[in-house]
Amino acid sequence: MRAITIPEPGGPEAPVLAEVADPVAGPGEVLVEVAATAVNRADVMQRQGRYEPPAGASPYPGLECSGRITALGPGVAGWSVGDEVCALLAGGGYAEKVAVPVGQLLPRPEGVDLVTAAALPEVTSTVWSNVFQIAHLRAGETLLVHGGSSGIGTMAIQLGRAIGAKVAVTAGNARKLSSCAELGAEVLIDYHGQDFVAELGSHGADVILDVIGAEYLARNVEALAVNGRLVVIGMMGGAKAELNLSRLMSKRGAVIATTLRARPLNEKAAIVAAVREHVWPLVAARAVRPVVDSVVPLGEVAEAHRLMESSEHIGKIVLEVG
Amino acid sequence: MRAITIPEPGGPEAPVLAEVADPVAGPGEVLVEVAATAVNRADVMQRQGRYEPPAGASPYPGLECSGRITALGPGVAGWSVGDEVCALLAGGGYAEKVAVPVGQLLPRPEGVDLVTAAALPEVTSTVWSNVFQIAHLRAGETLLVHGGSSGIGTMAIQLGRAIGAKVAVTAGNARKLSSCAELGAEVLIDYHGQDFVAELGSHGADVILDVIGAEYLARNVEALAVNGRLVVIGMMGGAKAELNLSRLMSKRGAVIATTLRARPLNEKAAIVAAVREHVWPLVAARAVRPVVDSVVPLGEVAEAHRLMESSEHIGKIVLEVG
Repeated sequence: MRAITIPEPGGPEAPVLAEVADPVAGPGEVLVEVAATAVNRADVMQRQGRYEPPAGASPYPGLECSGRITALGPGVAGWSVGDEVCALLAGGGYAEKVAVPVGQLLPRPEGVDLVTAAALPEVTSTVWSNVFQIAHLRAGETLLVHGGSSGIGTMAIQLGRAIGAKVAVTAGNARKLSSCAELGAEVLIDYHGQDFVAELGSHGADVILDVIGAEYLARNVEALAVNGRLVVIGMMGGAKAELNLSRLMSKRGAVIATTLRARPLNEKAAIVAAVREHVWPLVAARAVRPVVDSVVPLGEVAEAHRLMESSEHIGKIVLEVG
Repeated sequence: MRAITIPEPGGPEAPVLAEVADPVAGPGEVLVEVAATAVNRADVMQRQGRYEPPAGASPYPGLECSGRITALGPGVAGWSVGDEVCALLAGGGYAEKVAVPVGQLLPRPEGVDLVTAAALPEVTSTVWSNVFQIAHLRAGETLLVHGGSSGIGTMAIQLGRAIGAKVAVTAGNARKLSSCAELGAEVLIDYHGQDFVAELGSHGADVILDVIGAEYLARNVEALAVNGRLVVIGMMGGAKAELNLSRLMSKRGAVIATTLRARPLNEKAAIVAAVREHVWPLVAARAVRPVVDSVVPLGEVAEAHRLMESSEHIGKIVLEVG
């Protein structure tokens, strides 16, 4: 098969489409013929040589895909050759074929075409696991989403609203904030000119979903409501910062830092099962939709990575493979 | 009535036993004739002028008591004059009488005398709310208790063991560690000569109950197991420290800082109800017992505070009032 390889880490031109060995579906896995994958920031870091794939994962980038099942490994039940699916991957989505543990498979949702379905696994799994399973966002609470126009942000806004939360977002310009408002965000904060702590008002945010890390840590703690939960899932603004435990204690608050890719198979399977149970019906009902900025052919991956790094996109960047 | 007042903040001699106005049981409160109270570090800080009682609380120290109900305020049901009780207080335990919201009352546990019962409300509420309700310690997990021989520590060891967890403790000398071992602690760490991160081994601690704060923050994060939860309930080692979010993310860990005293009535009532449901049967069954270092008359409060500040005690220091 052909896959995107990274012979030398580097800029957007580093990835090379090359002929490589086909993957094989091991026990409990299926082989998927990939229709599309999508770009995540982790792919950019992997391309730059700053993010080693976890042990046992495919060496090729790509944390999600959509496609058709072409073979079943030993011990697989409940899935058939020909099924249209999308999947959460530990890697290997930037390829024509990928082996997927069955616990990470989702059926293509009703009303979403197969290419677009590649935009769903990472954002739905990330948002559901962090905002709901870890931070327990409840109806009537306020969710602050940093980077509201990102792929994760656009899904967090929609899922927050779908369960009855109030959603606040930060983003870098009026165009992005306008997209967030269309998705249901009610408090729109331009981080260039506005202070999110002040804009949130006295109650603060019950849950904050953050991809910035160190640079925002102190202000995120200030922005927390009493009993608030800050979930850090990215460190675009660095890893090390002073934490004032006295301020955190005054909020009776929690700072949680987590990641999806490194989780063991059983935890990923539990997350994917919860996404299928709770999110898929919302997608089928059109209450939540994948937000796709652009669809780029796999051969133009450099262009897709440039777009991701420009941060000019709104929602997901899909790479069409099939 | 007589109560311990603090005319001028200061050392152990600052508290003065004085004649003051009797409290009145308001709506939803009962009046308790106090048999005993117990010393908490917050009392010492209040005496030093470093911890203002929360709004609406009694100005006198004392976060818990035992005694008999002598009057019912308006709207109180389920309790009777003459009932022997103990109670979690927002203040006012260092006095002959105290008004208590009914949600903070507990019956004197079977098999525990009334004076000794004063040693139970704070430690059971603190440990149950933090270790179980907030950090969700489960059977088979490892709980690390810093200051294992403190009042909170002695209860955390016993409750951890009672639910089937493995318990590790730090303490400052062999005598204290021996007491922790008698209560069921299996990993004994002398913090003067041993590094708790190393002593815990490769799995680490699933839950850490910490009263040190800043000084231990980085090592507590290192000591966390994957999916571990650090609960900071004291800041004896300072409030501000660098947090490495990358290390925390590698553990998929949580840092939670919280406090009991400032919680609203409904949250305290929920905690006390859970203590009555889950801990009181263990006390009645002798599976968990109050550990009392000494019982000191209220008039000798200076001696009791000196003992608390010496950190030579093991378990609770009870002040006998009645």
